[in-house]
Amino acid sequence: MVGFEYAKKSDNASNKNNLLSDAVINLDHGDPTAFEEYWRKMGDRCTVVIKGWELMSYFSDVNKVCWFMEPELENAIRGLHAAVGNAATEERYIVVGTGSTQLCQAAVHSLSSLRPCGTHPVSVVAAAPYYSTYVEETTYVRSEMYRWGGDARRYEKEEGPYIELVTSPNNPDGTMREEVVKRPQGKVIYDLAYYWPHFTPITHRPHHDIMLFTFSKLSGHAGSRIGWALVKDKEVAKKMVEYIMVNSIGVSKESQMRAAKVLNVMTETCRSHSDSFFLYGRDKMKNRWDKLREVVEQQSDDIFTLPKYPEAFCNFFGKPIGSYPAFAWLAIGCHEESDLGSLLMKQKVLTRSGNRCGSDKNHVRASMLCRDDVFSLFLHRLASITIPATDSLH
Amino acid sequence: MVGFEYAKKSDNASNKNNLLSDAVINLDHGDPTAFEEYWRKMGDRCTVVIKGWELMSYFSDVNKVCWFMEPELENAIRGLHAAVGNAATEERYIVVGTGSTQLCQAAVHSLSSLRPCGTHPVSVVAAAPYYSTYVEETTYVRSEMYRWGGDARRYEKEEGPYIELVTSPNNPDGTMREEVVKRPQGKVIYDLAYYWPHFTPITHRPHHDIMLFTFSKLSGHAGSRIGWALVKDKEVAKKMVEYIMVNSIGVSKESQMRAAKVLNVMTETCRSHSDSFFLYGRDKMKNRWDKLREVVEQQSDDIFTLPKYPEAFCNFFGKPIGSYPAFAWLAIGCHEESDLGSLLMKQKVLTRSGNRCGSDKNHVRASMLCRDDVFSLFLHRLASITIPATDSLH
Repeated sequence: MVGFEYAKKSDNASNKNNLLSDAVINLDHGDPTAFEEYWRKMGDRCTVVIKGWELMSYFSDVNKVCWFMEPELENAIRGLHAAVGNAATEERYIVVGTGSTQLCQAAVHSLSSLRPCGTHPVSVVAAAPYYSTYVEETTYVRSEMYRWGGDARRYEKEEGPYIELVTSPNNPDGTMREEVVKRPQGKVIYDLAYYWPHFTPITHRPHHDIMLFTFSKLSGHAGSRIGWALVKDKEVAKKMVEYIMVNSIGVSKESQMRAAKVLNVMTETCRSHSDSFFLYGRDKMKNRWDKLREVVEQQSDDIFTLPKYPEAFCNFFGKPIGSYPAFAWLAIGCHEESDLGSLLMKQKVLTRSGNRCGSDKNHVRASMLCRDDVFSLFLHRLASITIPATDSLH
Repeated sequence: MVGFEYAKKSDNASNKNNLLSDAVINLDHGDPTAFEEYWRKMGDRCTVVIKGWELMSYFSDVNKVCWFMEPELENAIRGLHAAVGNAATEERYIVVGTGSTQLCQAAVHSLSSLRPCGTHPVSVVAAAPYYSTYVEETTYVRSEMYRWGGDARRYEKEEGPYIELVTSPNNPDGTMREEVVKRPQGKVIYDLAYYWPHFTPITHRPHHDIMLFTFSKLSGHAGSRIGWALVKDKEVAKKMVEYIMVNSIGVSKESQMRAAKVLNVMTETCRSHSDSFFLYGRDKMKNRWDKLREVVEQQSDDIFTLPKYPEAFCNFFGKPIGSYPAFAWLAIGCHEESDLGSLLMKQKVLTRSGNRCGSDKNHVRASMLCRDDVFSLFLHRLASITIPATDSLH
C-alpha cells in the first residue's frame, strides 16, 4: 500500500525554509493544493454557510435515479459542462460519488453485475502506463465479479467480457487516449478527470456511455471527495447508485452543496479576463511546465526527458494551446534500467515509480499540483542532481 | 435492493394534508429527521462557514494513522464520549468513515485480511433479528475474503475464523446484545450506533476492541455521512484506513468539520436543563413510544405487539430510565404466518419486513425517527387497521 510521508509545513515563516530544506516533499499523490491561491483571491464568493438543521436527511430528490444527489449540484454540473463544452450531458444520468474513486468502482461493479451469469470474473484492463490506483481498486476486495487484467494492449483473450478504463488525458503521462481493445464484448469507462482547459485543449465534446469527472482535479477541492459520472444507460446508472447506497448510503450533502457553489462560480467567471479559473489555471500550469522543461533541458547529458505534447485548437479558449498535465511523466534518458524513483528519493523527492503504473523504473510520475514553495523546491532538487557512475543507480 | 418511495412533502400548508393523506409514508429507512426541530431551536450555534480555499487537501494530519481525519473531529468525538460515558476512547485509535456503513465494511475487510492465508472466506454472522443491511454489505461485492454466514445462533462450524456483528441496542428490536458465538477464532465488531442516552440507559462503559458509532443516529445528521470507529489494535486500524483510502480516498472534510461543531455543542450542553440534546431526544422518543404503545394497546384483539424493555439505571441521567429505540419492532400477535409488511402497505405505511432481518413476516421494523407529521400519520393509519378474515393475510 502507499506511504503517506509528507513535507511538514509550518505557518511560521522563520521555520519554513529550514523545515522544507530537510523534509521529503511528496509528489507521489496529486494533492491539488496549487489552486488555493485562486480561491483565496475570490474572497467570499465561494463561502458556504450551513445551519445546524440543514441537510439532515439521507434523501435529496427521491424522484431521481440518484436520489442522494442535491439538485443544486446536478444543475451546477450540467451548467459547467455546457459552458466548457468538454462533455455531452444531455440524455445522460448524473451519479454523484465520494470522489471519482468510489464512482469508478461503482461503474466496474455495475457493468460486471449486468453481465450474464457464468461470465465472471470480468477482466478490467487499461493501457500502460495507467493510473496505478486502478490496480488497487479492482483487487483489494478480491471480488468474484471482476479482476484486474493488466495492460489493455496485452489483453489477449479472444472472447469473454472485459472492461477497459480509458483515462484521457492520461494519468500518468498526459497523452490523449482512446480505447485500444475494441471488441464486441467490451465496455469502456472513460475517466476524464483531467479533460479541462487548464490542463489540455478542449478539442471535441465526448459523448461516451460512461464518463467520470472529479471535483478534486478540476478546482483543487480534493478534501471534499466529490466526483460525478455521466451515464447514458439507465440500468447502469441504477446499479451504480445501488453500489453507492450499500457502500456508503450516499454522499456528503455538505460537500455537494459546496461543490455546487464552486462550480457555479467557475461557470459564471469562465469568460472573464480577470477572474476565470481556467485562465488562471492554464497560466499557472504553463508557467510550471515551462520552468520544469527549462530545468530538464539545462541538465547536462540529457539526464531526464519529458513527453512532448502537440498544440491543438481549444474550443474553449478559441485558439491553439498546449497541454500542461497535472503530472510530469519524467524519464531518466540515458541510463537503461535505472531506478529514477530511488534517485529522486535521495534528493528527498517522493514520486510514484513507473513500474506501479505498468511501465518501468526509468519513469516516475510527479505531481505538478503541489503548493508553490514545494514546486520551487522540487525544481531546485531536480536541478542539483548529477548522475554518478551508472552502476550505482541499478 | 431497497425501494425509495417516500412521502412527497410540500411546504405549501394547504397541500400538505392532501398530499400526506394520499402518500405512502416511508418508515423503511431510519431517516432521522425527528431531531431537526432541536437544531432549529439551537439557532446559529451549530452554523458552519467554509471559505472557498479551506479544506482543499486530501490530508488532515499525516502523523496520524487516520491521516484523513480532521483533528477537530477527533477531539470532539473523544470529548463527547467522555461526557456521556458510553465508550472507552483511551488507548484507542479513531478511524472516521463515510457513515458507519463504510466503516463496518472497512472493519470486516481489515479483520479478514489479517487472517492467515487459506482461512478464507471468513463467515460474517449476526444474531437474528439483525440489521438487514449487514447482508447486503457482506455480499454485494462477492468478496473471496468473507461471506455472509447468517444467524449467529445457528453458526455451527466447529472451527474456522468468523466475525460476529453485535448491534447493541439492537437494530431492529432494541434489545441489549452481547456476542453469542464466543469461540477462540472469532472476532467481534460492536455496532453501538444507538448506545446513546436518548435511546437507552447508559448502564456501563464498553471497551471492546472495535466499536462503531454514527453521527446519523446520534444527532440526526444522516446527510453528512459521518461515522467513527474506536479501534484498539493499531494493525486493524491501519487496515481500515487502507480500505477507506482505496474505497474513497478519505472522508468529506466539510462533513467532518460540521460534525465536530455539532458534537462539541452536544458536549457543551449535555448537562443543561434547557438545552441538552439528550434530554430533548429522550423526551421526544419517550413521547413517541408512549403514543405508539397507546395505539397498539387500544387495538381490539391484541392485533399488534411491541417488545417490552426493562428500566435500568442510566449513569448519564443518574436515575433509572426506560429504552426508547430508534425502531419499533412491531409484530402481528394473533395471526400466525401473516404478512405484516403487506398489511401495513395497504395502509400506505412502508416498513422493513422482518424476514429481511433474519426473522419472519409477522414482524416489521418501523422507523421512530421520522418527522412529527409523518409519525402522526403512522399512528393514525395504524389505529385504523382492522383485521379481516385471517386468510386474506396469508
